[in-house]
Amino acid sequence: MHDDMKEKLTVVKVGGAVVEDDAQLAHLLADFAAIEGRKVLVHGGGRKATKMAERLGVETCMVEGRRVTDSAMLEVVTMVYGGLVNKNIVARMQALGVNAIGLTGADAGIIRSAKRPPVVVKSGDTVDYGFVGDVTRVDHEALASLIEAGLAPVIAPLTHDGEGHMLNTNADTMASETAKALAKTYDVTLVFAFEKPGVLSNPDDDTSVIATITHSDFERYRDDGTISGGMLPKVSNALAAVDAGVERVVITRADAIDGQHGTVIC
Amino acid sequence: MHDDMKEKLTVVKVGGAVVEDDAQLAHLLADFAAIEGRKVLVHGGGRKATKMAERLGVETCMVEGRRVTDSAMLEVVTMVYGGLVNKNIVARMQALGVNAIGLTGADAGIIRSAKRPPVVVKSGDTVDYGFVGDVTRVDHEALASLIEAGLAPVIAPLTHDGEGHMLNTNADTMASETAKALAKTYDVTLVFAFEKPGVLSNPDDDTSVIATITHSDFERYRDDGTISGGMLPKVSNALAAVDAGVERVVITRADAIDGQHGTVIC
Repeated sequence: MHDDMKEKLTVVKVGGAVVEDDAQLAHLLADFAAIEGRKVLVHGGGRKATKMAERLGVETCMVEGRRVTDSAMLEVVTMVYGGLVNKNIVARMQALGVNAIGLTGADAGIIRSAKRPPVVVKSGDTVDYGFVGDVTRVDHEALASLIEAGLAPVIAPLTHDGEGHMLNTNADTMASETAKALAKTYDVTLVFAFEKPGVLSNPDDDTSVIATITHSDFERYRDDGTISGGMLPKVSNALAAVDAGVERVVITRADAIDGQHGTVIC
Repeated sequence: MHDDMKEKLTVVKVGGAVVEDDAQLAHLLADFAAIEGRKVLVHGGGRKATKMAERLGVETCMVEGRRVTDSAMLEVVTMVYGGLVNKNIVARMQALGVNAIGLTGADAGIIRSAKRPPVVVKSGDTVDYGFVGDVTRVDHEALASLIEAGLAPVIAPLTHDGEGHMLNTNADTMASETAKALAKTYDVTLVFAFEKPGVLSNPDDDTSVIATITHSDFERYRDDGTISGGMLPKVSNALAAVDAGVERVVITRADAIDGQHGTVIC
């Protein structure tokens, strides 16, 4: 349902590979600064976390594209996502004239989650992801109140359980849950920016961008293996966002976040 | 000048030793939650940063109680202060019913600083403290707008230079500059909470709390060595805060932040 009375708002999700590359990040931040009107950035940082974990002798274990988070790894991601990555983005945004405010789900209580119980994954194994939170509630009014004060939230992929604990949360999920919640108030465009020009039918061919993906396309691509690994939750989150009232979801390369490039999910 | 029209606001500064001890921190946070009305927490975290630096093979160098911050140490303090310490405090406050929001100086542009040029220290040596920021401007309106939205800012000892860089800033200075700026709008009590029951005339005797310290007392205590090391900037900041309109400054133990204990600076 399109509501002409709603103000436009853009949520951009930027992945770990872009965050890690200084030139790519600079380009992305300049493009983000150029977006008119209300805006939110959700960032990853997984590769930086993996490197920091390695320096600290903390082992990284990924299952189906998602990080297993024991207490030592929770410390690492809290530092890297909430501190190092988030604050450097905020400082750089401020220098670009964007009045950014760095947030995790705990800050102003914007995003609450529940610790994920052990789950059976595709392979049939049961996996305990540890201190990983599945989003249970986005306080869109708290977020909207910051946005209406002229601030641009920069959100790190961390949530809290309401009982005093931080939890590690997938950044794509954070972006799509945030976009869905803000769709109650705003006309939302959600842009997933990463290192590829869109969802590719051939991962080795950057010109093989799939122009649009519907629910039925997704099922087919998932079953035939065209979409796999880290792209699975990305596209699945995008579809859920559209179902929940987000006007437009685009998956695109980080240097093309104007909404005119990449794969449109509908 | 006392203004009866001003709302009361309490700024509590809590030091690294308290932040590091789980039982002490829990006590402090419960007491902070019990403070009526508007409130701000400013935290340190130096000991945690020193430990993390050690684990990462980054050397810690202190001159006259202040950390020399090269680029590797800036990364450590940005992670530890802005991420690990700040977000855990925020999550725990949320669990206590305090709507906390974690901030560095970069967030919402609240505290800007200038990189400190090399300075001549007491010993006569010239020291380049590196990526250390001296506060140049606190945006009290931006802070007040968050506070009036019902939020309790939790401020990490990091600032930004307005040109895209984070800078390490002394937490006592952050607290006193924040209190001074907020004194334009509020009737401010500033409480420095640390591991001792107040400013001691004999550092080995916890019963030797000095009840009040004036400017002239401070000069005498500094000259005769009663106040030295990390206490020097603490008391000096407290005096500057009083001069700048902060109603009341108290230096006290972290388990006695009700304003009825410790040393009153006036």
